[in-house]
Amino acid sequence: MMLSLSTWCDVEAYLERSRSILLPIGSMEQHGPTGLIGTDALCPQIIAEAAAAEEDDILVGPTFNVGCAQHHLGFPGSITLRPSTMIAAMQDWCASLRRHGFERIYWLNGHGGNVATISAAFAEVYAERSLSGPDSEIPPLTMRQRNWWELSGVMATCQRLHPTNDGSHATASEVAVTYAAYPEQQRRVPLEPRVAPNGSFTDAEDYRSRFPDGRIGSDPSQATVEGGQEIIDAAAKALRDDYRRFAAGG
Amino acid sequence: MMLSLSTWCDVEAYLERSRSILLPIGSMEQHGPTGLIGTDALCPQIIAEAAAAEEDDILVGPTFNVGCAQHHLGFPGSITLRPSTMIAAMQDWCASLRRHGFERIYWLNGHGGNVATISAAFAEVYAERSLSGPDSEIPPLTMRQRNWWELSGVMATCQRLHPTNDGSHATASEVAVTYAAYPEQQRRVPLEPRVAPNGSFTDAEDYRSRFPDGRIGSDPSQATVEGGQEIIDAAAKALRDDYRRFAAGG
Amino acid sequence: MMLSLSTWCDVEAYLERSRSILLPIGSMEQHGPTGLIGTDALCPQIIAEAAAAEEDDILVGPTFNVGCAQHHLGFPGSITLRPSTMIAAMQDWCASLRRHGFERIYWLNGHGGNVATISAAFAEVYAERSLSGPDSEIPPLTMRQRNWWELSGVMATCQRLHPTNDGSHATASEVAVTYAAYPEQQRRVPLEPRVAPNGSFTDAEDYRSRFPDGRIGSDPSQATVEGGQEIIDAAAKALRDDYRRFAAGG
Amino acid sequence: MMLSLSTWCDVEAYLERSRSILLPIGSMEQHGPTGLIGTDALCPQIIAEAAAAEEDDILVGPTFNVGCAQHHLGFPGSITLRPSTMIAAMQDWCASLRRHGFERIYWLNGHGGNVATISAAFAEVYAERSLSGPDSEIPPLTMRQRNWWELSGVMATCQRLHPTNDGSHATASEVAVTYAAYPEQQRRVPLEPRVAPNGSFTDAEDYRSRFPDGRIGSDPSQATVEGGQEIIDAAAKALRDDYRRFAAGG
Amino acid sequence: MMLSLSTWCDVEAYLERSRSILLPIGSMEQHGPTGLIGTDALCPQIIAEAAAAEEDDILVGPTFNVGCAQHHLGFPGSITLRPSTMIAAMQDWCASLRRHGFERIYWLNGHGGNVATISAAFAEVYAERSLSGPDSEIPPLTMRQRNWWELSGVMATCQRLHPTNDGSHATASEVAVTYAAYPEQQRRVPLEPRVAPNGSFTDAEDYRSRFPDGRIGSDPSQATVEGGQEIIDAAAKALRDDYRRFAAGG
Amino acid sequence: MMLSLSTWCDVEAYLERSRSILLPIGSMEQHGPTGLIGTDALCPQIIAEAAAAEEDDILVGPTFNVGCAQHHLGFPGSITLRPSTMIAAMQDWCASLRRHGFERIYWLNGHGGNVATISAAFAEVYAERSLSGPDSEIPPLTMRQRNWWELSGVMATCQRLHPTNDGSHATASEVAVTYAAYPEQQRRVPLEPRVAPNGSFTDAEDYRSRFPDGRIGSDPSQATVEGGQEIIDAAAKALRDDYRRFAAGG
Repeated sequence: MMLSLSTWCDVEAYLERSRSILLPIGSMEQHGPTGLIGTDALCPQIIAEAAAAEEDDILVGPTFNVGCAQHHLGFPGSITLRPSTMIAAMQDWCASLRRHGFERIYWLNGHGGNVATISAAFAEVYAERSLSGPDSEIPPLTMRQRNWWELSGVMATCQRLHPTNDGSHATASEVAVTYAAYPEQQRRVPLEPRVAPNGSFTDAEDYRSRFPDGRIGSDPSQATVEGGQEIIDAAAKALRDDYRRFAAGG
Repeated sequence: MMLSLSTWCDVEAYLERSRSILLPIGSMEQHGPTGLIGTDALCPQIIAEAAAAEEDDILVGPTFNVGCAQHHLGFPGSITLRPSTMIAAMQDWCASLRRHGFERIYWLNGHGGNVATISAAFAEVYAERSLSGPDSEIPPLTMRQRNWWELSGVMATCQRLHPTNDGSHATASEVAVTYAAYPEQQRRVPLEPRVAPNGSFTDAEDYRSRFPDGRIGSDPSQATVEGGQEIIDAAAKALRDDYRRFAAGG
Repeated sequence: MMLSLSTWCDVEAYLERSRSILLPIGSMEQHGPTGLIGTDALCPQIIAEAAAAEEDDILVGPTFNVGCAQHHLGFPGSITLRPSTMIAAMQDWCASLRRHGFERIYWLNGHGGNVATISAAFAEVYAERSLSGPDSEIPPLTMRQRNWWELSGVMATCQRLHPTNDGSHATASEVAVTYAAYPEQQRRVPLEPRVAPNGSFTDAEDYRSRFPDGRIGSDPSQATVEGGQEIIDAAAKALRDDYRRFAAGG
Repeated sequence: MMLSLSTWCDVEAYLERSRSILLPIGSMEQHGPTGLIGTDALCPQIIAEAAAAEEDDILVGPTFNVGCAQHHLGFPGSITLRPSTMIAAMQDWCASLRRHGFERIYWLNGHGGNVATISAAFAEVYAERSLSGPDSEIPPLTMRQRNWWELSGVMATCQRLHPTNDGSHATASEVAVTYAAYPEQQRRVPLEPRVAPNGSFTDAEDYRSRFPDGRIGSDPSQATVEGGQEIIDAAAKALRDDYRRFAAGG
Repeated sequence: MMLSLSTWCDVEAYLERSRSILLPIGSMEQHGPTGLIGTDALCPQIIAEAAAAEEDDILVGPTFNVGCAQHHLGFPGSITLRPSTMIAAMQDWCASLRRHGFERIYWLNGHGGNVATISAAFAEVYAERSLSGPDSEIPPLTMRQRNWWELSGVMATCQRLHPTNDGSHATASEVAVTYAAYPEQQRRVPLEPRVAPNGSFTDAEDYRSRFPDGRIGSDPSQATVEGGQEIIDAAAKALRDDYRRFAAGG
Repeated sequence: MMLSLSTWCDVEAYLERSRSILLPIGSMEQHGPTGLIGTDALCPQIIAEAAAAEEDDILVGPTFNVGCAQHHLGFPGSITLRPSTMIAAMQDWCASLRRHGFERIYWLNGHGGNVATISAAFAEVYAERSLSGPDSEIPPLTMRQRNWWELSGVMATCQRLHPTNDGSHATASEVAVTYAAYPEQQRRVPLEPRVAPNGSFTDAEDYRSRFPDGRIGSDPSQATVEGGQEIIDAAAKALRDDYRRFAAGG
């Protein structure tokens, strides 16, 4: 059940049977010469939609589609929020949902660079209640963040498909997921070097100087539509299980 | 050309021929018993995609999908940003795009409640440069906001389709646009009263007490897939023209 | 009754009979070679004082005298708040007044460039209560903004006095209002061209390049003390009516 | 020369001969049963206008009329900014003036409760340049705050007029200044006790419990129009001297 | 009793007998060629520890060790908070302590440049409760700031030890206090001139140009370990008395 | 070399040979019935001082002593910053140090709950430069955070000393480190149960309900002064190596 395609009456009925919601969260940032800028927002959205397609009791909210991508700003098209802005926006989303009676929010994340700021936003939200004392009038909220590639069984699938050089940015696996959903967007241009270098980075200028075409450690030319679909299927299944446990208070 | 489905190399090439970008901006809020919560984000996104489908030189960025909806919080599923958060987020988007060399940003808006805050955000962005003086190192930026229903010829189409009671929230026209794009999401439940009351409002509690099912002045039971498609076609055509003039400096 | 010239005991007594207050809000910005920098703050203040002079039950608060004027910073003397600062300041004013039991705030605005940010500030204030839920401890507040030139009958007076080229910035009408209140401040310097150009603008540099002497579309040499007084009289009368209806919950 | 009654051309000409500006800054807060709520904003404004009336090279900007008055919120009509808001607003005023080439800003203060936050705002403004390093592109700014009662000779006048019980809030002297400017606003109600108690305070509730009618240590029944005029004259003269030295770099 | 060396059970027991806490607050900034960068944080910490060593019912919290030092940024090693950041941080400390039932916070300050911002932060904290009305759920808090050199008898000791040229920054007295605590850190380099100039300042560049080695008005070569110990003893004794009165509600 | 015990001249000389600085960062929060509230700030400070004692070219700045501890607010004495405040404060520290020419900042962290917000703060700092474009005037900065227990060889030492039940909050190892530095602060009270439960948590109320005495998974009764000293020695040695590599650009 997609929130954006539901009516408020649908949500009212849903809240009778569940107090949980799933929010895909990603980024809008370069993914090398063959990966799509929307990759990190698309992957959790694709997987969440696949999971919800076969399970009535997953409510999928809007995708938080621009995240922490300051290090990618050396590549045209990347868009970032400053972490402090991202925290403020996530607070507003949480406060809105809490107002309706939602008690558990599951953030399905598609971008490693978001992990820290998502955790910081959780602490910011929890702090409101923690600071207002034991008799706080603010209802409690339980949040989880889960990177889609850490869902049970997904990494194994990715490693089976791309035993080497899946990489850490513009990975073969994430590119495959987007190709499966948008096969007409496949790019088959030569990558030079085929396997991108590894390393760490600081700001956008530093990043671009170390990773000239944007990839880190990956060879996304391995990505196929079929492989992507396998990953989506594995992830959607694992997500249903993980979300169900979360919604049940686990 | 959709930014989220492009590579950074695509955007680099695009910037050689254009310095403009189109950003759909909407809201996630109740639209009555038959309208979808995503309506205000979906409409500009649908129209922008339709326009871009037939025109290479329109780059459509990610949809700013949660906006100013505090007055709808009395209805489950509505999500709001506080205006100050929305301004901060829009600033970050603009700063990111300006960094890449974009000089003109066209915000296609789908929510009346966003209009004021979008304008305030423009002033916030312009103020950075205005305050830093005539020799500012901040490159200039030109922004426009356009409500899709104000595109040339669109209102005429809407009025022809729904000569009475199109309304002002959960309008027959906007509901029709989403039904055209998501025909399986049509809802045909009785509306009581058929035509919703009109009026103004303050906060969420006030809104809900005045407009019990969420609609204002509308009879969205008039919405049809065919009518929605007519509106999309008219809007997409007008958008291409309007955007082209904007991109040309007009 | 002017708040700044009242004692707290006066206000305490006033609150026994009314829960409404009127706040003039304007800007400190250039108004061409013959218009005063304070014009947009002075006009609503002059009109509010005139209205209150003949009506005991209008409490006129302090003038919010610096507003959104980033686009005028190319002209010496203009002062702006960033919209985010203006929202924060208006929030504090509202929170203070709500604390005393005021339930309705009528903002009489004198500056077109403030309209969007005032609306955004309203949404920011309403959002506090909307987000805190149906059992919120925050008392409700009802706000209205009214541009003085939109008060009933005022535009007709302005058009009768200046049938052509009243303009949209440094208008003959607003200049006339300030001349009526400060006749010794009349400026009679030649304007070149007599009627200023029309158009839109972005930031301060852009504004100054398009409107070299600061005026937009206006010929303020038409402004007279007598005409200004007519406008004040018409506006004060209409304001009394409008405010009375507002205070009565209309 | 009053900024609000000047044109931008006047200010442009003024900047040829001076780079300094004077800004009255006060508060909107209760001043006991006989003092006006606007007292702290009115006093510096009255004195500044008197000084400028006899001296061409004093440019008096708009009055910053709402300040730090949280402790007075127990009395109807008091309005406060939070200190963080006040700092942000003062930053914007300073940035606007610096943009025009102003190099020295003289804040004439009328409210003891503002002193700390004004100093904090100065540090906030200076910090921008201090943090941006020795080659900063931000032009330097020099600011001074002066309480009007500390101008040379003023305290002596006040003590001569009210040798005892001038007090520290709702003082006989400040009430006298406002009575001189607004003689029709004199209030002659019995004060009980005639001399208010002294002491310190924390928040609004604490303040009201300690100072039931709002005054601290004062007997404002001593205030007269004639005495007020003497204070204004002494203060205006001292202000001209002090401002002249400041404008000359002293 | 040092908070950082206590367990939560210790604090729970302490709260049974006292609702007050002492927080040293200072700065990290240059103190001339012979003074330590930590001087302003060390002095209140040293004195507070000395006081607490002989009195069970003083709970000394962590030192707020970086304050308002923008004017010292021309000298390597100085670190500043912007005042707005300092206010936010102090708010969080206060909110945390209030949550535990602390009702009185005594800030022992070591830096003149902090005084204004500490006061502003107090007003910010008090404003939360003042704005939320007479039935506020926020418990009241009482705060005091005390500069250690203003404790009863301390200034007399300083003047006896350094009858001339104690100065106002990098004073002989504060340097002596740190030398007493860290005798191995004594610096005996020639100061040129021996007595530093006096004056005022704005930002870091201005400060450094006026006070080339960082000192203001002082001759810290007078500082001795023995003198420092005398000051510590006098201050610790006075602090115990002052804090005891404060904790008792005085 | 401790910054707080250095003069600005010392730092100026240091900057001739190094552009790096080490900042201990921790928290002020409960550590069970036998652990000290300052544990997480003390550990990195103790280890950093030990490392610097034998290495001239480590400059240790002030300890960032209050961090993200919202979840511990159910236990008296815990103090938290909201993550957004912590980001702002870290930004100011970084901006100050960058102003002096520091190019590399090594944050030695003592609190798992800080990790996310430290990373978010890094992104906030980097974003300033990334958003200002390739010709940014902001000098680059390289930052690293390192948890002291992850320094090479430290975990092995901890596991040798406490092969079971070191735990994850109020660990035997961190308690041992503080006992080694403050042997007089050893607490030997019975823990019930001896080994604390494991699990996750959200806000303060949730935390306290799951972990009644504050510990998670640990048996800190194993902590000894001797063991603590071993850990300090191992960590100090590893820190010297790690910092040296970092300072050398590694």
